[in-house]
Amino acid sequence: MSSNTIEIIPLPITKDIESKDKIDSLILQSLKNSDRSLFDRDIIIIAQKIISKAEDRIINLSSVSPSKQSLEIARRQRKDARIIELIMRESVNVVKMSGGVIITETRHGFICANSGIDQSNILDGHQNALLLPEAPDRSAQRIRNAIMSKTNKQIAVIITDTFGRPFREGQTNVAIGIAGIKPIRSYIGKNDLYGKKLRATEIAIADEIASAAELVMGKLERVPVAIMRGYKYSTSKHCSACELIRSRRKDLFR
Amino acid sequence: MSSNTIEIIPLPITKDIESKDKIDSLILQSLKNSDRSLFDRDIIIIAQKIISKAEDRIINLSSVSPSKQSLEIARRQRKDARIIELIMRESVNVVKMSGGVIITETRHGFICANSGIDQSNILDGHQNALLLPEAPDRSAQRIRNAIMSKTNKQIAVIITDTFGRPFREGQTNVAIGIAGIKPIRSYIGKNDLYGKKLRATEIAIADEIASAAELVMGKLERVPVAIMRGYKYSTSKHCSACELIRSRRKDLFR
Repeated sequence: MSSNTIEIIPLPITKDIESKDKIDSLILQSLKNSDRSLFDRDIIIIAQKIISKAEDRIINLSSVSPSKQSLEIARRQRKDARIIELIMRESVNVVKMSGGVIITETRHGFICANSGIDQSNILDGHQNALLLPEAPDRSAQRIRNAIMSKTNKQIAVIITDTFGRPFREGQTNVAIGIAGIKPIRSYIGKNDLYGKKLRATEIAIADEIASAAELVMGKLERVPVAIMRGYKYSTSKHCSACELIRSRRKDLFR
Repeated sequence: MSSNTIEIIPLPITKDIESKDKIDSLILQSLKNSDRSLFDRDIIIIAQKIISKAEDRIINLSSVSPSKQSLEIARRQRKDARIIELIMRESVNVVKMSGGVIITETRHGFICANSGIDQSNILDGHQNALLLPEAPDRSAQRIRNAIMSKTNKQIAVIITDTFGRPFREGQTNVAIGIAGIKPIRSYIGKNDLYGKKLRATEIAIADEIASAAELVMGKLERVPVAIMRGYKYSTSKHCSACELIRSRRKDLFR
């Protein structure tokens, strides 16, 4: 498998996404506006934020009544008790809590800050909070199906979010929902260039694609979608971003 | 800052890299072979492995005498005591050790498996091991200077390695040495699209670039170098991949 030049194409969507907006139609419209078309094996990378908005995962904080436990945590961590309440509701487990940083395991299994709940780049971000999609793989699959049936092109979809990580400064984009692409490229059992068997190399290519797409998305550019073209990936009918989650049993850090 | 299409161009180098090989010349030769030239603001991404080989960081294991401590660890972790000895020599601290997995803090400050020591894709990988470059930022700077003086183009250089991470399966490429590019893009204090101040968003763009480049490099394709073209980054004279290392004080996971 030799490699080609890869292109990462930004797809602006200037509309403020609202509940029930059709992300697939907006993507196709943006392509049309920029005089582009889809190719077979394009990967469409979509920021979680617009998926969550379209799926009506925005919560007005005035509707949230914090529990006693949330009030107590909020006091200790100096945070809004209503946000704490949402973080707890969206999580199955608190991994770490210290100095106002709350790392949880979300219902999906992701380990991230604040159960992925965010108040940036949403309308009235002081009064509202945005939750992760309920089932990001399903969201990816739905968008993939809609775009494939409208364009007759074979594509993959990756939904991304911006996560911090231990040990390293700064956040990077990772894949939280996928459709049509195997998220990990394994070299285990393959011979290296000198004939020695590789024993441990498995590359989280879906996360690398998510990170690559972030470079054209940014946070302030109204580019919530990117297309990656030219990358040779393995397709998969039954795939899930959960393949990227290390099980607790195998994880040395929780 | 609106975004362009980004290109990631693979640069094959088929030569087996040996001590004293000039990486800058090999990169320029590969460009020439593929009828390409450099553009101002191109980012050249280079796999650590060829840097280490050129800098003669290969160790013949028969020359390594393990200490008593290394022999003891090797017995418990069921590993080669000579490799353990090298891991210990290259580290300042063991972060985690369990079931044959050894996570250390390297002399540079990176938290990674086996102090970044690797036996894959090197000549006679059963008898040899390859260490990380001694000062990857300096290696990046040297290659950047050489290429800029030969081409008169303004470029940046990122040296990458493949690291695992807690919580998520699979490895991704990260930046371990940089020259001419600010590794983190901070949005702190900027207003989001709705006028709310961003408080925590800092993107580790050098790691994202490293990950993007891995997609064309692979592990078996003899593509140890990639060029990223079209990404708008902030240049920096004094930058270091160490900016990507979270200090122990700020790290919740050690």
